[in-house]
Amino acid sequence: MYSIKSIYLRIGEAFTNLKFTQNPVQLYEPISYTLNLGGKRLRPALVLMSCDIFGGDIEKAVHPAMGVEIFHNFTLLHDDIMDNAPLRRGNKTVHQKWNANTAILSGDTMFVLAYEYVAKTDPALLPEVLDLFNDTARKVCEGQQYDMDYETQADVSIPEYMLMIRLKTAVLIACSLKLGAILAHADKTAAEKIYELGIELGLAFQLQDDFLDAFGDTAKFGKAIGGDIATNKKTYLYLKAFELAKDDMLINLSKYVSGNPIPIAEKTEGVLKIYRKLKIDEITRLEIETHHARAMEILHSFHFAPEKTSELTNLMQEMLGREK
Amino acid sequence: MYSIKSIYLRIGEAFTNLKFTQNPVQLYEPISYTLNLGGKRLRPALVLMSCDIFGGDIEKAVHPAMGVEIFHNFTLLHDDIMDNAPLRRGNKTVHQKWNANTAILSGDTMFVLAYEYVAKTDPALLPEVLDLFNDTARKVCEGQQYDMDYETQADVSIPEYMLMIRLKTAVLIACSLKLGAILAHADKTAAEKIYELGIELGLAFQLQDDFLDAFGDTAKFGKAIGGDIATNKKTYLYLKAFELAKDDMLINLSKYVSGNPIPIAEKTEGVLKIYRKLKIDEITRLEIETHHARAMEILHSFHFAPEKTSELTNLMQEMLGREK
Repeated sequence: MYSIKSIYLRIGEAFTNLKFTQNPVQLYEPISYTLNLGGKRLRPALVLMSCDIFGGDIEKAVHPAMGVEIFHNFTLLHDDIMDNAPLRRGNKTVHQKWNANTAILSGDTMFVLAYEYVAKTDPALLPEVLDLFNDTARKVCEGQQYDMDYETQADVSIPEYMLMIRLKTAVLIACSLKLGAILAHADKTAAEKIYELGIELGLAFQLQDDFLDAFGDTAKFGKAIGGDIATNKKTYLYLKAFELAKDDMLINLSKYVSGNPIPIAEKTEGVLKIYRKLKIDEITRLEIETHHARAMEILHSFHFAPEKTSELTNLMQEMLGREK
Repeated sequence: MYSIKSIYLRIGEAFTNLKFTQNPVQLYEPISYTLNLGGKRLRPALVLMSCDIFGGDIEKAVHPAMGVEIFHNFTLLHDDIMDNAPLRRGNKTVHQKWNANTAILSGDTMFVLAYEYVAKTDPALLPEVLDLFNDTARKVCEGQQYDMDYETQADVSIPEYMLMIRLKTAVLIACSLKLGAILAHADKTAAEKIYELGIELGLAFQLQDDFLDAFGDTAKFGKAIGGDIATNKKTYLYLKAFELAKDDMLINLSKYVSGNPIPIAEKTEGVLKIYRKLKIDEITRLEIETHHARAMEILHSFHFAPEKTSELTNLMQEMLGREK
């Protein structure tokens, strides 16, 4: 079995060797820029790891894994235009560094590149691989639309929110694992099961992201705290708080998100105080734990030898911010 | 052999039956809107016609043909954002009717849909079909980038322009014909040849578009005249005129495109007068004729019975605005 470390090295090497020097330069330069911003390369790692677990040759999964990562970066590029985000991974976003038109078109081209790389596979597997990728891509678009819709939708429910993060985040994690299984010629039932594991893992991963934005340790996680609170983003924490808050606490919470000008530090502190009183931190951790446990349950149901799954188990722990 | 008319009817029926009623509505409504704006459906017609010529079952080509048309409409949707175009086929563009974010994301989703439809084919043909479609999609993006680059590039040459229209327009016409051939199980040489025919046809088609924008009969062609002249678009006509104009005529032509405020009617008339003096109309017609002749030459080289190719010959004539 390959270690997480060697898998990350293999993917890093693949992306280092990926050069776009062709014309038109204006189209390919932003693509190189985007793909060189780095990031965790989590999704391609999951493809290779799953392929390895199911006994496949990870070398045959490298190109499709890169396709998934290119797709992920394409979605970030277009999302950043839509969110008018200035920064991505500490660097200027493409639409800021160049312009929106360049970002749209380079993004479209990355989408084609994603298909090109995903398709670099055994022709016999192509129909299944392409079905999976099309289904995933469509769902990610749907998730992004719900995410945008919820910005102005007053009454977002928690099930609606869970559907959104399932589409926007979890299906690509699930797709990565299933893709690895398909490329290892795993049977359909196994491929479906690992997909479901990916959904649970993806939900936990996004909830963890929500959690860290409010309760994370800036120094430890390298992310600024309170961005979601500042922008009234309807995260799991926000929606749960509104579900549970009563009387004075509800009035108080409503005041913070009303749009009246309140200094950011005061708002963040005030909302966090309410979150803590309502035990939103514990409730969210429990929800994360539940999805993580379901993912582990599915993994155990395969009855793999422990040494086969220890690296994936570790990666899952890592994704959810736990000490090993 | 199917008549052009019956092929258009079949495609029209397929698009009439294509409904997107699923959620999120905000994502799928603009897609339905775009696909219902109509248009000539030229590209899917070419897919079916080519499939028919090579002895294939056109019913098996309907879905991939729809994929090509959905892709074409996706490119128009994103191009309209980039060009900030207010109208498309006489109706508001998606980014005007909704907003830019909706247009970006609905476009992305249409791109996935295009892949879904193109992939609805015999699995054995999928690798070849997907290769063709990926290659085409990438080139169309490159063409759009060159088109944008040329807006600000001072010294665009005619070979550069021809490369741009080859990528932006001709390869999708060529792809349509080759796709039909592949779906009919034509051999590789034949598929390559019909692709080359499509390139020549596509070049002629785009040059004809340039020509009509300057010299077209508004009543007959249903398009306003002089849009390209008004915006100093570097068309074949514009570039040829600058290549040929000397002395006073060059000074005069430069004055019109200098950006100094000149009433549109005066500018259009002045530029057209220079075009006529330089015989740009005749030169362009000759160039169109040359590409059309090359396309016909390739068609003849197949040695098909005339009744097999008469409908394609007619459609080519139609595309180039000729009386039959």
